[in-house]
Amino acid sequence: MEELRQAVTVAGLSMRLYVLPPDSTSCWPCLLLFPLAWSPGSCDLFQLGQRAGEDVCVVINAGKSRHNEDQACCEVVYVESRRSRSVTGVSREPSHNQGFCFYYWGLFDGHAGGGAAEMASRLLHRHIREQLKDLVEILKDPLPPPLCLPSTPGTPGAPSPSQLVSPQSCWSPQKEVTHDSLIVGAIENAFHLMDEQMARERRGHQVEGGCCALVVLYLLGKMYVANAGDSRAIIVRNGEIIPMSREFTPETERQRLQLLGFLKPELLGSEFTHLEFPRRVQPKELGQRMLYRDQNMTGWAYKKIEVEDLRFPLVCGEGKKARVMATIGVTRGLGDHNLKVCSSTLSIKPFLSCFPEVRVYDLTQYEHCPDDVLVLGTDGLWDVTNDSEVAATVDRVLSSYEPNDPSRYTALAQALVLGARGIPRDRGWRLPNNKLGSGDDISVFVIPLGGPGSSYS
Amino acid sequence: MEELRQAVTVAGLSMRLYVLPPDSTSCWPCLLLFPLAWSPGSCDLFQLGQRAGEDVCVVINAGKSRHNEDQACCEVVYVESRRSRSVTGVSREPSHNQGFCFYYWGLFDGHAGGGAAEMASRLLHRHIREQLKDLVEILKDPLPPPLCLPSTPGTPGAPSPSQLVSPQSCWSPQKEVTHDSLIVGAIENAFHLMDEQMARERRGHQVEGGCCALVVLYLLGKMYVANAGDSRAIIVRNGEIIPMSREFTPETERQRLQLLGFLKPELLGSEFTHLEFPRRVQPKELGQRMLYRDQNMTGWAYKKIEVEDLRFPLVCGEGKKARVMATIGVTRGLGDHNLKVCSSTLSIKPFLSCFPEVRVYDLTQYEHCPDDVLVLGTDGLWDVTNDSEVAATVDRVLSSYEPNDPSRYTALAQALVLGARGIPRDRGWRLPNNKLGSGDDISVFVIPLGGPGSSYS
Repeated sequence: MEELRQAVTVAGLSMRLYVLPPDSTSCWPCLLLFPLAWSPGSCDLFQLGQRAGEDVCVVINAGKSRHNEDQACCEVVYVESRRSRSVTGVSREPSHNQGFCFYYWGLFDGHAGGGAAEMASRLLHRHIREQLKDLVEILKDPLPPPLCLPSTPGTPGAPSPSQLVSPQSCWSPQKEVTHDSLIVGAIENAFHLMDEQMARERRGHQVEGGCCALVVLYLLGKMYVANAGDSRAIIVRNGEIIPMSREFTPETERQRLQLLGFLKPELLGSEFTHLEFPRRVQPKELGQRMLYRDQNMTGWAYKKIEVEDLRFPLVCGEGKKARVMATIGVTRGLGDHNLKVCSSTLSIKPFLSCFPEVRVYDLTQYEHCPDDVLVLGTDGLWDVTNDSEVAATVDRVLSSYEPNDPSRYTALAQALVLGARGIPRDRGWRLPNNKLGSGDDISVFVIPLGGPGSSYS
Repeated sequence: MEELRQAVTVAGLSMRLYVLPPDSTSCWPCLLLFPLAWSPGSCDLFQLGQRAGEDVCVVINAGKSRHNEDQACCEVVYVESRRSRSVTGVSREPSHNQGFCFYYWGLFDGHAGGGAAEMASRLLHRHIREQLKDLVEILKDPLPPPLCLPSTPGTPGAPSPSQLVSPQSCWSPQKEVTHDSLIVGAIENAFHLMDEQMARERRGHQVEGGCCALVVLYLLGKMYVANAGDSRAIIVRNGEIIPMSREFTPETERQRLQLLGFLKPELLGSEFTHLEFPRRVQPKELGQRMLYRDQNMTGWAYKKIEVEDLRFPLVCGEGKKARVMATIGVTRGLGDHNLKVCSSTLSIKPFLSCFPEVRVYDLTQYEHCPDDVLVLGTDGLWDVTNDSEVAATVDRVLSSYEPNDPSRYTALAQALVLGARGIPRDRGWRLPNNKLGSGDDISVFVIPLGGPGSSYS
């Protein structure tokens, strides 16, 4: 196959873009490889570009959509203190004394258009940076975070951290808040502000559709894995699988959705019922007793079918076919502000949450070897494989390379993506077991936790 | 100490009641020992009374309340099919061909009076039995449960299970519902109906206060552990701890409570805010930025304090001092229909859930030895100990008895209760580590999973 190669510079990072043209089965596979000089335990902005060859991301379009709706982003982001900027009223050059930086990886799986995923891949890390700016001094201070800050961020003459209200000075008992939970809160609010920006700019900037977002920050020795949607992150450590996210779908969030429909029935119009039935109830079944469950139940029971039960269930279907209001199969993510039920004015956005679940992994609590990795994948990967198979691929691919060969992680990411895509055969893409390969966009990040740059290099 | 011994017959089960009179430290400890011929793997009603000496419950009042507010119940319950009753229009004697029975253990930790706990201990298993009556034929049939049942339970001439709408006959794809999930649904609805009965009868029957409920059913080879409140159940199997419940408190259910307050602000009046702060905000802090989190956040962030933030937080406090509306420290349970915020007309019940979380443990999936037990305890036990210490006590006590000595489980239950109560010293009850013993009522069930009556006996 002819290969178009393009060199692109994104936010100061060298990125190689491989575009593979359409092939005989009308697919447009597209590989994006991000080289990032990632070195766990270190957070030095100036290492960038000094190492090479560590490709840690592959994005591939398996042919479902003409244009790949997956987007990815990989950055080193410098966070300057808001206080240090405005002490003199003018912005100063960042220096290492005033800020810190974080490593950032993001996967964005778009739906109903690529606009939201594209926008999130460009801007979400900037929202995170903005949220962290207020926290620079606090995170550097080993003392617990202060309960109160002065009214305006970066007010000239603002007190130093030691002058802020400290927990000890409070008259009443109070909860202790950790540094971790401040970073988690910053990420959560950044997702919310990103979503609000999409709402504001959706007309002017062509933000069509929505996207799932799975992002990882490496900051002060810890990995923060934030997931809103049905992508997934796992750590494979010494062969052991450590789940770092869970999926948010109509099935996993059924009770949240049903509770909202129960408390705010106006959101359901006269078209939907908040009750779940194993399938849609038919008019001839009126008066019979059918299996159902409500927002309080995880089990099933029988209820007598009444007229309102003939409405379409708010949550229906199973597995990949589960839908909210017969429309969308993910319940968290960014965008979707215009999403309506087909042939209806009912809005679906009120049922969707833009808030991620954030899990924290302390890299310093465990000695990592070169085969320990964090794997991020969109549902295009996980639809056709599982944690154990991915762990087996990690073992198989990495053990076939020298531990200090940086290309081993690229090879692993490629093996994961190409394994999920399959090969063209029998009028479709087939996996080795002859099952259909993923028909969705497939994106994978492989992030070495103890790779070159770590203690052994 | 003088010991009052009383023989009581409850629902056909012989129960010995030990009442220990007040002692020198003004405590009214009270021991209740339930002998139950429990034999895992068997569910034969007529074994009852044939074995003796297996005391599997101890209830003790450590002196917090003048009258013990903990209640317990231990039953073998026969479930007759509703269909078999009414085929001829009259009730028939139960026979083993038509029904089944389940073993039942319940712990009820009352608060603000003992009425709710007492009522639940008398009636909850009857509600469960009523819910199961419709399911007798379905649970005995290895086929998946039918989607629909005829309109009226037990209608004369009702079709046999095979004539009911079967999953296969449906035109549209549907979820498969398991037998397990029907039993879970039956237990969930039984809790709800018990709570509704308390609401109806609270005046006539003096149902004061509310109660946490932790109940276990052994049915068709599986244990169903249902918990609503802050009691706890664990299995200790071959020294390994398997959690069988989680606690529902203002801290663990914070986001559910905050979401409700956010969606239904009228429930908060003008007295409470749905936002959480590390402590109550003071008027002089208006305009400053203080740590907070809302219903969407697990992390913390800073927000500028506005006038509404001076209201009392819906959820406040930490650990055992956490409260909803400054009033109650558990968020699930039965009763509390009259509970109001102090000096206010605001009702707290809308924030409380009567629904349990039900976990299922398949006894047939593992070979159990005589030292494997299910331990249930009210918070009086868990406040001063933890899973590991309980597992260590299980090991220590059981290994000091012969495996076929049935009194070993009684000794274990007593050791757990007395260990949590401590001994009178230094003007209080002290544990061996000199910390204060539990000041709450303490109740424990020890249920052998492979004890006498199992394979080895």
